[in-house]
Amino acid sequence: MSSDHTVTIDTDRLRERFDAYSEIGATENGGLHRLALSDADRDVRDRFVEDLHDIGLDVRVDELGNVFGRYQGRDPDAAPVFVGSHLDSQPYGGRYDGQLGVLTALEAVNAIAESDVEPARPIDVVNWTNEEGSRFQVSMMGSGGYVGHKPVEEILAVTDRDGKTVSEELERIGYDGEEPCEPPETGVHSYLEVHPEQGPVLDDADLSAGIVDGVYGLAWLQVTIEGKADHAGPTPMSNRRDALVAATDAISEINRLPGGLSEDAVATVGSIEVEPDSINVIPARARFTVDVRSYDDDVVDRGLERVEAEIAAACDRHGVEYGIEQLSRHHSIEFSETVRSAADRGAEAAGVDVTHLVSGAGHDAQHLQSVTDSGMLFVPSVDGLTHSEAEFTEWEDCVEGARVFAQTAVELATDGTD
Amino acid sequence: MSSDHTVTIDTDRLRERFDAYSEIGATENGGLHRLALSDADRDVRDRFVEDLHDIGLDVRVDELGNVFGRYQGRDPDAAPVFVGSHLDSQPYGGRYDGQLGVLTALEAVNAIAESDVEPARPIDVVNWTNEEGSRFQVSMMGSGGYVGHKPVEEILAVTDRDGKTVSEELERIGYDGEEPCEPPETGVHSYLEVHPEQGPVLDDADLSAGIVDGVYGLAWLQVTIEGKADHAGPTPMSNRRDALVAATDAISEINRLPGGLSEDAVATVGSIEVEPDSINVIPARARFTVDVRSYDDDVVDRGLERVEAEIAAACDRHGVEYGIEQLSRHHSIEFSETVRSAADRGAEAAGVDVTHLVSGAGHDAQHLQSVTDSGMLFVPSVDGLTHSEAEFTEWEDCVEGARVFAQTAVELATDGTD
Repeated sequence: MSSDHTVTIDTDRLRERFDAYSEIGATENGGLHRLALSDADRDVRDRFVEDLHDIGLDVRVDELGNVFGRYQGRDPDAAPVFVGSHLDSQPYGGRYDGQLGVLTALEAVNAIAESDVEPARPIDVVNWTNEEGSRFQVSMMGSGGYVGHKPVEEILAVTDRDGKTVSEELERIGYDGEEPCEPPETGVHSYLEVHPEQGPVLDDADLSAGIVDGVYGLAWLQVTIEGKADHAGPTPMSNRRDALVAATDAISEINRLPGGLSEDAVATVGSIEVEPDSINVIPARARFTVDVRSYDDDVVDRGLERVEAEIAAACDRHGVEYGIEQLSRHHSIEFSETVRSAADRGAEAAGVDVTHLVSGAGHDAQHLQSVTDSGMLFVPSVDGLTHSEAEFTEWEDCVEGARVFAQTAVELATDGTD
Repeated sequence: MSSDHTVTIDTDRLRERFDAYSEIGATENGGLHRLALSDADRDVRDRFVEDLHDIGLDVRVDELGNVFGRYQGRDPDAAPVFVGSHLDSQPYGGRYDGQLGVLTALEAVNAIAESDVEPARPIDVVNWTNEEGSRFQVSMMGSGGYVGHKPVEEILAVTDRDGKTVSEELERIGYDGEEPCEPPETGVHSYLEVHPEQGPVLDDADLSAGIVDGVYGLAWLQVTIEGKADHAGPTPMSNRRDALVAATDAISEINRLPGGLSEDAVATVGSIEVEPDSINVIPARARFTVDVRSYDDDVVDRGLERVEAEIAAACDRHGVEYGIEQLSRHHSIEFSETVRSAADRGAEAAGVDVTHLVSGAGHDAQHLQSVTDSGMLFVPSVDGLTHSEAEFTEWEDCVEGARVFAQTAVELATDGTD
């Protein structure tokens, strides 16, 4: 029973590491600017590897710079449990997104190493390369390469805005590892990650942790509306083919769509631009993106149909043409029942009240689900804030989340039966 | 009576000049890219000055590079009639906008010089510097400086995107003249300009020319809406403060406003941008411009009130804040009755059917109205197209317009009484 395997995390040590890591790439406003494969990313990786060595873990780096620190269980040939997250940040992002997950995983393994618990399986603490996709525009890059979502060679050739490749930058910061970027021959037993929620559910419910049942399905569209440029003065309203007015009509309707689709559906236009973009010229072209999500893939599909219907209606009304390109379509993921029930037992062992919820955002854990039993815990983010220097999680919640995490890791590494 | 002063323009010469000038700064698609004070602007000015000399006119260049070619009337001390337009173009603009006006004025004076008509007054053919305001962002710059709308020193210090000043560029192309940029001591008797309409009225009415009674009043606003950035996935629709959705609601309503204001009112949003401008982030900020015009200034004022009311309502609905900055407010201009009635007589003498209309766009002629009796003729632009390489006026209409123009110039230069 799990109650035989209680692990006590060292909250002072977790706090010290969190504060020390937060200095690396710190921004003036208390956030982090630690883009993937930057000098700051190198510095935090160096510190991470030092900590892995200090607690006696064997360190491996793979071709995409993913870092693994292995705690040997009783059976070194057993499939390992992976625990981790990412150390890179958004541009001027927060301290908790990613970093909290890596340091919680590190502390959990540190605590297990110091405890009487002797897990049957190895446990790897993992830092996945470039989760954010801000500098090199492949989000969840390291985990995606690891599970074969995209060929490693293709990923290594991706460039940033200055034309530097992933490959060059990995070499420059000394993280162009030799391990193949793929699961070991034993397979991976399971993967566990903790992350700030990036939404308001836990904060609203005043809970310190939640068990993530799955990840929303997502579709990304690029819409282009073509009208006709004309002088804003002498062109009567009735003679216009204004691409922006058609776009704004469509965007207003797209914003109203989710209410008629499902309780959880969301639709967002995050980016828009017009041409010629001049104060006294009727826009000839408007381009905007659409992001549609729901935990129910049928809802996403219905949403896409209605988005197109609204765009078509608005364009018809204004006598303009449109084109829609689908940039992305990720189906929803249900996390492993094995991990979810281990997390339930872990929360019970830790004595922490939890709820179950789903993630509207993507995480490395969703890639891992395609090769192993994967799952996540969330801790609350105050006001659901994320991708902001002001992102904040109460320290008490970080600690409670870490306690659930450590017990869940024990559950997984001992198969709940040791 | 005007019938004693018939002038016959040489349509072949007008056509030859039009074709030759159109080669200077020609684009692949049959338009013009002849930005103010560029090499192409210098080349076309050189050709223009050569033509002024060839027909025996005295050439003067003022401090802002405005070029005047004087035909001496019987009384050299009389206040001169000015006729002209501008030789600069929009970026990848059309061949007719501006150029047709200068060449028509040149041909009219050329024809008068060859005729038996001996006007009492001098006539100056004028090329105003930088009417378009594309490169140096002061539209109607030369004429504005000439009438004291803005201090000449201030205009000379205006820079383009590369940091080059008007002053440097005038010197570089050899058009930093010594004449003071101001009306002569005699004053200016009147100003006449012909221009493509840039709207659909004449084309729809199948008329070759129109007499412009005045220019619309105009207001330009810069609107900034401030919401809150959040992740597009995990943030429920009900928790959002989406700056773009508030902006799109407002823009849709702004587009509907003119119908309820007056028959002639127009409202345009030509420019919009959002921050952070990312596909999966709810926009924290949206900025857009508003252009409101009518020939009735009360309508413009009422329009501005309603624009603000719609922005306020949309922002209230979406829980976001807004700020509005008024960038410009030009009151409507009524052109001189003297010039309008001269144009009526000119059209009659030329035997060309005309209508009266107003201009939704700004022109050098509106600045001149503040120092003299000013007026304009329009020729049709097919489909009202303007600021486009595809801008087109039937040659027959150019010729008919030139015939009315020449007769009107005679009317003005002879005071209709010679």
